[in-house]
Amino acid sequence: MVASGERIANAVLRSKVMSADEAALRIRNGMNIGMSGFTGSGYPKALPQALARRIEAEHARGAPFRVGIWTGASTAPELDGALARADGIDMRLPYQSDPTCRARINAGEMEYIDLHLSHVGQFVWFGYLGHLDVAVIEATAILEDGSLVPSTSIGNNKTWLDLADAVIIEVNSRQSPALHGMHDVYYGTALPPHRRPIPILSTGDRIGRPTLACDLSKVVAVIETDAPDRNSAFNPPDAVSEAIAGHIIEFLTHEVSRGRLPETLLPIQSGVGNVANAVLAGLGRGGFEGLTSYTEVIQDGMLDLLLSGRMDVASATALSLSPAGAERFEREIETLRRKVVLRTQEISNHPEVIRRLGVIAMNGLIEADIYGNVNSTHVRGSSIMNGIGGSGDFARNAYLSIFMTPSTAKGGTISAIVPMATHVDHTEHDVQVIVTERGLADLRGHSPKQRARILIENCAHPTFQPALADYFERACRAPGGRHTPHILAEALAPLVPRER
Amino acid sequence: MVASGERIANAVLRSKVMSADEAALRIRNGMNIGMSGFTGSGYPKALPQALARRIEAEHARGAPFRVGIWTGASTAPELDGALARADGIDMRLPYQSDPTCRARINAGEMEYIDLHLSHVGQFVWFGYLGHLDVAVIEATAILEDGSLVPSTSIGNNKTWLDLADAVIIEVNSRQSPALHGMHDVYYGTALPPHRRPIPILSTGDRIGRPTLACDLSKVVAVIETDAPDRNSAFNPPDAVSEAIAGHIIEFLTHEVSRGRLPETLLPIQSGVGNVANAVLAGLGRGGFEGLTSYTEVIQDGMLDLLLSGRMDVASATALSLSPAGAERFEREIETLRRKVVLRTQEISNHPEVIRRLGVIAMNGLIEADIYGNVNSTHVRGSSIMNGIGGSGDFARNAYLSIFMTPSTAKGGTISAIVPMATHVDHTEHDVQVIVTERGLADLRGHSPKQRARILIENCAHPTFQPALADYFERACRAPGGRHTPHILAEALAPLVPRER
Repeated sequence: MVASGERIANAVLRSKVMSADEAALRIRNGMNIGMSGFTGSGYPKALPQALARRIEAEHARGAPFRVGIWTGASTAPELDGALARADGIDMRLPYQSDPTCRARINAGEMEYIDLHLSHVGQFVWFGYLGHLDVAVIEATAILEDGSLVPSTSIGNNKTWLDLADAVIIEVNSRQSPALHGMHDVYYGTALPPHRRPIPILSTGDRIGRPTLACDLSKVVAVIETDAPDRNSAFNPPDAVSEAIAGHIIEFLTHEVSRGRLPETLLPIQSGVGNVANAVLAGLGRGGFEGLTSYTEVIQDGMLDLLLSGRMDVASATALSLSPAGAERFEREIETLRRKVVLRTQEISNHPEVIRRLGVIAMNGLIEADIYGNVNSTHVRGSSIMNGIGGSGDFARNAYLSIFMTPSTAKGGTISAIVPMATHVDHTEHDVQVIVTERGLADLRGHSPKQRARILIENCAHPTFQPALADYFERACRAPGGRHTPHILAEALAPLVPRER
Repeated sequence: MVASGERIANAVLRSKVMSADEAALRIRNGMNIGMSGFTGSGYPKALPQALARRIEAEHARGAPFRVGIWTGASTAPELDGALARADGIDMRLPYQSDPTCRARINAGEMEYIDLHLSHVGQFVWFGYLGHLDVAVIEATAILEDGSLVPSTSIGNNKTWLDLADAVIIEVNSRQSPALHGMHDVYYGTALPPHRRPIPILSTGDRIGRPTLACDLSKVVAVIETDAPDRNSAFNPPDAVSEAIAGHIIEFLTHEVSRGRLPETLLPIQSGVGNVANAVLAGLGRGGFEGLTSYTEVIQDGMLDLLLSGRMDVASATALSLSPAGAERFEREIETLRRKVVLRTQEISNHPEVIRRLGVIAMNGLIEADIYGNVNSTHVRGSSIMNGIGGSGDFARNAYLSIFMTPSTAKGGTISAIVPMATHVDHTEHDVQVIVTERGLADLRGHSPKQRARILIENCAHPTFQPALADYFERACRAPGGRHTPHILAEALAPLVPRER
């Protein structure tokens, strides 16, 4: 760890440096805590673990101790994992992807609200989610005026800092000082009826300031840390991911040739994971130039595009890199600083900006039904996987809304294309293209029955195609309306694969 | 009928006046036709019926003849009814509410695409819905320069006029000449990446011109008509509607008292029908002043608010009045002209503007499940009723998203609150408040299980409460995740009422 205070240029805040365990004493049972963190980056590394220890100690002596945990999006084992293990979370929002957290939620031991990421900040400002007691924010550095250089994500940090009664700052010396200047924190938001247009006209426009304002009188503790982000390794793309990427590249190329997309495409939004990285790699190989990205997260595949010169600018609210990607980011940070804008998530996910820019949205799914309704969040209708995240912000407002998935899960035993989705996050009205490794279904301009035929034919795995086609044909003859034919008695039953 | 040409100040267009039957000869099998019309107002009165006669004649001699019909939203028996009766519609979009049309769709005899109303215009510009051959537009008058004074709705008329190969204009002398100046047609839209902010900062802002531009060289026919809009009578509010309205007014008053809404509220969006009118009447009685409305349709209840001075300004894309309301509108049109702005539907329903203004959205539903997912469109998952219309544009982007319904349908035999919606148009992420005559469920800040308890307790009819509570409690103990507990084998089964 670097010498104490080296990154804390403000004297008042330097005087508030203490251990995480001391700081955790500021938190009491029943509080709501807004923490930094988005897609495993920029989350506080020390306070949550200290808080988990405190909660465990309180529980051990029979005292109740649970808190509400609000973040940008997903965090890491040191935050969600530690607090969920301690049974310290009463209410979690707006997104999680932690195994321990998920298990608690699905066991009915912890409440969870799954929100559109663009809604979170404003709902807190509107007073809809309750009072925010404490903000716990990771920063790269504290400047002399007390403002904070954000770290590898911004998420809802501005909102948490503005609205919490008390603030705890973690200054993480592992984050590169060169991040300073990469962020764009917009302070022009307001409550209706005082809202003004968000003045972004182009992906890279800077409309804010590079640091987070912080009311010094609210800061109750500053903690020094020196720990890396989650930085999960990606597997190299497999054949299924490569095939999905191939279909998407072919489709985008076709759209350009038909004049429905410019040659430089339009700003790309891409979820995280292997399929998304394969698509980004495919864009690099596809000969596209002058690309841009307006998205939530910058991952390894986007780094390749930025550094190879194929992508001019990327706007996001977080980095989510592999360990190798993080090293490369650090090495090339002076180049990247001119090409990367990190924004608050209310702006990275803002419907107004996404629609104005005409984003090409690419998101994953758990299951899609034959009519194009998408389930992004629930297994068999009841168990939460992660959450809707920003997929709805992008899909609804996109120029092109693409959803992608392998055609089967669990070793080929479960079909991703089903008769009726057991939970719906994106309705038929918001889904234009579905892609699996088998092919691409362009649903634009088609009625439900037409969509069903295309989806079964182009996207379903051959093992499940007969059962899907059989369901659809029988539904078309069944009693009931023939706009969206269904047989409700069997619509939710698991699909039986053809014997092989 | 007035003397020919009286409202056609442009000489070129006056020379193109012909009968509807002559004009209908310009339309061929397989064409896509963009017609005016929104919520039973401003639709062409003559051409569709002439086209239906032509189609019937062609069918009688064994020739195929079907067309694609695109509109703003719903029309009337003279358009949807006549063409559906003639089996003349191949593909209908983006919304309909006609009994004959609905029956054809649900019989599988006609295709239908149910779209967010804010998506329609841009999807046509993007080239997603196919080529637009002919525009058929009702106007109040044609000015000397050939521009059109719109009639009682604008809908997608600007897009149809701009993009169609050929234009047919119906000049309806029944529409008041005083409508001139009430419209605001925005010509600042563009395709990405050239889009700019929509410059509306306040409900009544005018950002366009009062008339529709029209390329004279595309006009193939002008038809003179003299017929009223659909102008359906409303029933006086019944006890159920009054009770729903009462809960909403009480809730809004409470929100004002908690500082979550200004005293003048925020711009109101309200669907059409008796419940909506009861809510508007309730606002009038509730002592609110300085109200505004940013909505799709101006109906009788809103007229009362505007003329009583309680509402300062209303923005919409259409009028939808009773015969008495239409007379009153005509009588008071000079007053109303200062308080009413009629816009294109891409602006009346624009997510950017709805979110910026902070609209209070109030829409109906067919069924809501215990977790707050809303079905606005389908009966028993398969039969289309009308369509999603603008409800998604408003609900997703609203400051407050309210859905309202009587707690039962079909004489009390069907519950509007169900274990699992058989179709989802608005997901749990977009529904904040549900209201029935039994009470109001404020779902904000609650997890799915918490929502279920509130909804069953506050909104379900006592006849169905035991069955819903029993389902929920058993689902909470069933195998499977307990985030959104379900028993899939019975989730979609009709609910059994308690014996009385």
